[in-house]
Amino acid sequence: MSNALVTHRWIARYDGAARTSVTDAIAIEGPLEIRIGGQTVSVTLRSPGHDAELAIGFLASEGLIARRADVRNIELAPASCSDQADAVDVTLAEGVTVDWARLERHFAATAACGLCGRAHLESLRAGLRPLPPGPALDPGALVALPERLRDAQAAFGATGGLHAAAFCDAALVPLALREDVGRHNAVDKIAGWLLEQERYPAREGVLWVSGRAGAEIVLKAARAGIPALAAVGAPSSLAVELAEAAAMTLVGFLREGRMNVYCGGERLNR
Amino acid sequence: MSNALVTHRWIARYDGAARTSVTDAIAIEGPLEIRIGGQTVSVTLRSPGHDAELAIGFLASEGLIARRADVRNIELAPASCSDQADAVDVTLAEGVTVDWARLERHFAATAACGLCGRAHLESLRAGLRPLPPGPALDPGALVALPERLRDAQAAFGATGGLHAAAFCDAALVPLALREDVGRHNAVDKIAGWLLEQERYPAREGVLWVSGRAGAEIVLKAARAGIPALAAVGAPSSLAVELAEAAAMTLVGFLREGRMNVYCGGERLNR
Repeated sequence: MSNALVTHRWIARYDGAARTSVTDAIAIEGPLEIRIGGQTVSVTLRSPGHDAELAIGFLASEGLIARRADVRNIELAPASCSDQADAVDVTLAEGVTVDWARLERHFAATAACGLCGRAHLESLRAGLRPLPPGPALDPGALVALPERLRDAQAAFGATGGLHAAAFCDAALVPLALREDVGRHNAVDKIAGWLLEQERYPAREGVLWVSGRAGAEIVLKAARAGIPALAAVGAPSSLAVELAEAAAMTLVGFLREGRMNVYCGGERLNR
Repeated sequence: MSNALVTHRWIARYDGAARTSVTDAIAIEGPLEIRIGGQTVSVTLRSPGHDAELAIGFLASEGLIARRADVRNIELAPASCSDQADAVDVTLAEGVTVDWARLERHFAATAACGLCGRAHLESLRAGLRPLPPGPALDPGALVALPERLRDAQAAFGATGGLHAAAFCDAALVPLALREDVGRHNAVDKIAGWLLEQERYPAREGVLWVSGRAGAEIVLKAARAGIPALAAVGAPSSLAVELAEAAAMTLVGFLREGRMNVYCGGERLNR
């Protein structure tokens, strides 16, 4: 992977129950603030690079500009409220106007602090309570979870065609599996199931997701009090940061009898 | 696939350049409005089913409720402003309050008409102009696009580890490839590249995406004036509906020398 998009980290790699320490490349995920004339229109979590393209492409996709000539200037800048975030300042051409009232309804959402998503993330991170250690997790059973889930899918009426999320107890028994076209929705459905079962917050067990582990999935798991997150795909750098702050066990690439443990490995080694 | 999550449709399936007509199962994607005490807090595009779980799970993930007892009642209902959308009405328990001002900043976004995402989608659909026919696309060259992209990845500095989007001209030559942890961002980066090239709207060519083709990807492609969208993964029902409304060619499961054409096949058969 090219340098700009990844960071490196020591992780524990399991092949079956055999554990080795290796360095792994992790995709960098970070907030980008998009501003028009100094005012924030959106904060998006993205891979750094091509930030100017992302900013004007986003503005065009949302119908705020229609052609390159609608933009007078594009400048990379630090974000308004954190030196850890990046920003792009777009200056529109004379005569091109923005309906700020409409914008506010559309995009204020992502900028939860009213300024910048990074601040939102920072407040979320500050709000993360370390999750309880809970019962130990057996690495061999965790590596074998995909097979168990395959067996369980029929029972749960799963179709295999969509994003899926599952909640397993500390013995790695799948208790609920939900599917959705949106991966965040699948996780919210699991949170709803936990609520209905009066198991929210969960305090133990594992959240399994069929795709990647991004920052927002980690935050949902932490909020639900689930101390371990296991993903078929890769975690992002921000996901690892947030999982560490929540004392969560974060497992990625859980497939074909192998897995990578990015943090919280102590739950597997007791 | 189970009935609730899919719909069926006649499509053209290509194995190499050989074309057959088959029925295909397509994942249903539709809006769900989540209301507290009658007021909209969010509209999400989701797979129907487990809607009550999704609603309360979402509220918990966002920190609005902390346990099942915070909810007095959950009711499925029609959405406020369209009989085609679904809604869940949540009534909170006595003493549980919602900070509406904070909420407004967080969630107003998704409900662009101020009421319901379906209305937003309907206004977007109404705003879709039929894309120009543009030059014909050769089915054999389209089926072979994955190989071309693999060859092109090195040139574009692609890592293969993230979501990717590419823009190809009508002769299926890849002109730009962008990667991102977020699949929407990868498409917005391509839109930004088109703007920089003074090719926005594109009027011809193909947008290729590494994942699924959801409704939002179709809308971004239509806005960018790209008359064909080709995805490695599956399209959703709403993606097909919107692509038809935009007279766009929508291709899914483009891999291993095969592809499915969901609509707009006339561009391939001239």
